[in-house]
Amino acid sequence: MTIQPRLGAGIRDYLPKDMIPRQKMLDTIRKTFELFGFVPLDTPGLEVEEVLTGSDPNFRMNIFKAGLRNSEDQSLALRFDLTVPLARVVAQYDNALEKPFKRYQVGKVWRGEKPQAGRFREFVQFDADIVGSSRLSADAEIIALMCATMKALGFENFLVRINNRKILNGLSQFIGFTVDKTPEVLRIIDKLDKIKWKGVAKELASDEVGFSEQQLELLKRFLDLMDVDQDSLLGNLQELMENSSIALEGIAELKEIQENVEALGVPKSKFAIDLSVARGLGYYTGPVFETVLTDLLSIGSVFSGGRYDDLVARFGSSEVPAVGASVGVDRLFAAMEKLGIVQQEKTVAKVLILNFDKNAERKCQEIVSNVRASNIPAEIYLGRETTLRGQLAYAVRQEFLAVIIVGQSELDGGVAQVKNMGARNQLAVKFDEVTSVVKGIIEV
Amino acid sequence: MTIQPRLGAGIRDYLPKDMIPRQKMLDTIRKTFELFGFVPLDTPGLEVEEVLTGSDPNFRMNIFKAGLRNSEDQSLALRFDLTVPLARVVAQYDNALEKPFKRYQVGKVWRGEKPQAGRFREFVQFDADIVGSSRLSADAEIIALMCATMKALGFENFLVRINNRKILNGLSQFIGFTVDKTPEVLRIIDKLDKIKWKGVAKELASDEVGFSEQQLELLKRFLDLMDVDQDSLLGNLQELMENSSIALEGIAELKEIQENVEALGVPKSKFAIDLSVARGLGYYTGPVFETVLTDLLSIGSVFSGGRYDDLVARFGSSEVPAVGASVGVDRLFAAMEKLGIVQQEKTVAKVLILNFDKNAERKCQEIVSNVRASNIPAEIYLGRETTLRGQLAYAVRQEFLAVIIVGQSELDGGVAQVKNMGARNQLAVKFDEVTSVVKGIIEV
Repeated sequence: MTIQPRLGAGIRDYLPKDMIPRQKMLDTIRKTFELFGFVPLDTPGLEVEEVLTGSDPNFRMNIFKAGLRNSEDQSLALRFDLTVPLARVVAQYDNALEKPFKRYQVGKVWRGEKPQAGRFREFVQFDADIVGSSRLSADAEIIALMCATMKALGFENFLVRINNRKILNGLSQFIGFTVDKTPEVLRIIDKLDKIKWKGVAKELASDEVGFSEQQLELLKRFLDLMDVDQDSLLGNLQELMENSSIALEGIAELKEIQENVEALGVPKSKFAIDLSVARGLGYYTGPVFETVLTDLLSIGSVFSGGRYDDLVARFGSSEVPAVGASVGVDRLFAAMEKLGIVQQEKTVAKVLILNFDKNAERKCQEIVSNVRASNIPAEIYLGRETTLRGQLAYAVRQEFLAVIIVGQSELDGGVAQVKNMGARNQLAVKFDEVTSVVKGIIEV
Repeated sequence: MTIQPRLGAGIRDYLPKDMIPRQKMLDTIRKTFELFGFVPLDTPGLEVEEVLTGSDPNFRMNIFKAGLRNSEDQSLALRFDLTVPLARVVAQYDNALEKPFKRYQVGKVWRGEKPQAGRFREFVQFDADIVGSSRLSADAEIIALMCATMKALGFENFLVRINNRKILNGLSQFIGFTVDKTPEVLRIIDKLDKIKWKGVAKELASDEVGFSEQQLELLKRFLDLMDVDQDSLLGNLQELMENSSIALEGIAELKEIQENVEALGVPKSKFAIDLSVARGLGYYTGPVFETVLTDLLSIGSVFSGGRYDDLVARFGSSEVPAVGASVGVDRLFAAMEKLGIVQQEKTVAKVLILNFDKNAERKCQEIVSNVRASNIPAEIYLGRETTLRGQLAYAVRQEFLAVIIVGQSELDGGVAQVKNMGARNQLAVKFDEVTSVVKGIIEV
């Protein structure tokens, strides 16, 4: 029986031409996270379902359960993010982990989202979190890390937008609606980028939320504060929301974070207070962050996070303050492709030894082994083409920079032919000098 | 409701002290694979179940199925290796992939094995395969890669054992048993290492296989060939099995592979023909390889593979020859721990800036940002300790090499105190010279 080779909906492969630059991207993120003193952690993809969902039934529908066929044990599921597993680790190994625990982790996560363009059911997140610090300088450190990462990845036009859940939680008091409506109100405000004020106002006026004209007017005054310059924003906000103690607390926090981020060397042009940023996940308790590409706003945030001081408490530990952020690796890579800053590559090795003469094969193997011994990635031709011409065509298609040729006449003459594919020239080189000649070609 | 933080059976975490060296190990493997001209591929953890199992019902019981709660779609499962997904990729993107396709891939795989010491239900494999080459020099390339990788990882005492399924398939003719018994016979022979000849003979004489004394005698003669030196082994084997054409084909292949591996610069002491090696997986069709640590034979093979020329045909493509091998990353890491060659590390950053004086915090942030700008990983203290003494104790526990101290008196004096934790001395350093002094300390 023949089986059709295929993938599930919303699931993708990365072929080498994309995987080579994608891996460089992952290396850059890792290097930047390590520069900031974060250490690696690895946790499994399969977790106990209850650990993932806690008592929040909203997550359940979105989760992939996993189990053995014919097994009674139905307790496992695939993680949907790396933050909940981090909270589990902190609760589980509490004493073995020095605090603050600054860890990074890269790994796949799974969500049962409706497959659509740019949304995947399996994707990679790359997270950095600081666990065990309530200092606002920790929040600032995360923001500085976000900016440094984007810069290291080659992005010029990005903006880290910052807000505080405490300010948003103050809206019910300020505008006058019942606290239970807050999640729905925030969900709508979060869409300001996409549906603009007109759309937001329409949704808020709908039956479900039922904002009056006057309430909409108050919210508009709140959001319009962003039209003035950043330096006055927090001062104006403080005046506007003076009746909400929780909002005032949030405003003071943002002010301190701003100063800290600047001291960490981040230019003012790279981060801004944005009062419409809410971030979806239920666990954020204070400052929230997101990163947009100003040339490609439509794809949404590529690097987001915030403070979540209550998450570890799910596991019965005392309160453990934490703050962190997560790169949406696949979305960011898709953005880089769209912006044309991904350099597709066909090979990692830039040197090919042809292999078309059975008599010369041992010598070819000896040469490739010598080239590799100098830490130069090299390939010996192992395909179906048996002619020099056919193998050279492969070298051209695969964009090798240097090609080494050894056949009977080279064996007889004691020299290899070394082709510089870019310069389109060819040299006869003594066997024991091949490595240094090749090095010269690829290092130009 | 409090949730107990825990993992499923047979599933583990890697905390930073282990993850730091483990990641170095993964980097080394990757670098070696790239040196040999392999390119990266990434495929999803979730595959269509039928793609994974094919028509082989044996795999089914061992597979983790995955699905959304309340969803009709029950077609997905977690991959149990990286080879079947590779075959799927080759069939699916046939024309987009240049042949030979030399790819490497690292990723988690899941198997529903009985949890026991050293066996995990979720573990990482690191594979290299050459698809689209029937040349025996491709098999040799894989063996050379295995040896180079083990050497790069710091192993001295390892041995790559080589055999050929064709020789083993010739046993039925040579010994005289029905072909359908071959899998069971090979499964028992494969245990020679563990249960020795006595155990093997006992199991083969059992009712299930029913070997006679004479049959056991023939098998013993076959296995005893290994007691003679490697140079005579294949010659003697050729004489012994001259009545089996398939075995003779396998013997000739091994002879050629041996010569190729030597030409690729692998010392004779690092690889050997071993007639007891069978490798479990059903898809191998020719040469098979495994790697044992001669100081730790008990843990079994840490890096295994072979030729599988029929696997892609499962997807209806014409026959695509392929050969490859897979590192059992978790088993190998466990072995390195047992052998004491893992260097646990507490941090990646070796520089800590203390942060105990609110007035000096901005200056500390400025300094950490400068140090990082010189590509030196550095941490600014963000924990609960508020005193210099408390933060210094953290620096000692975390084994930082350099500690930078700025409080009110340093602000006043315009200098930071820089501690060399190894040499146990301390210097007053002008703020703009801190980076170069720190560099001197950590680069010693």
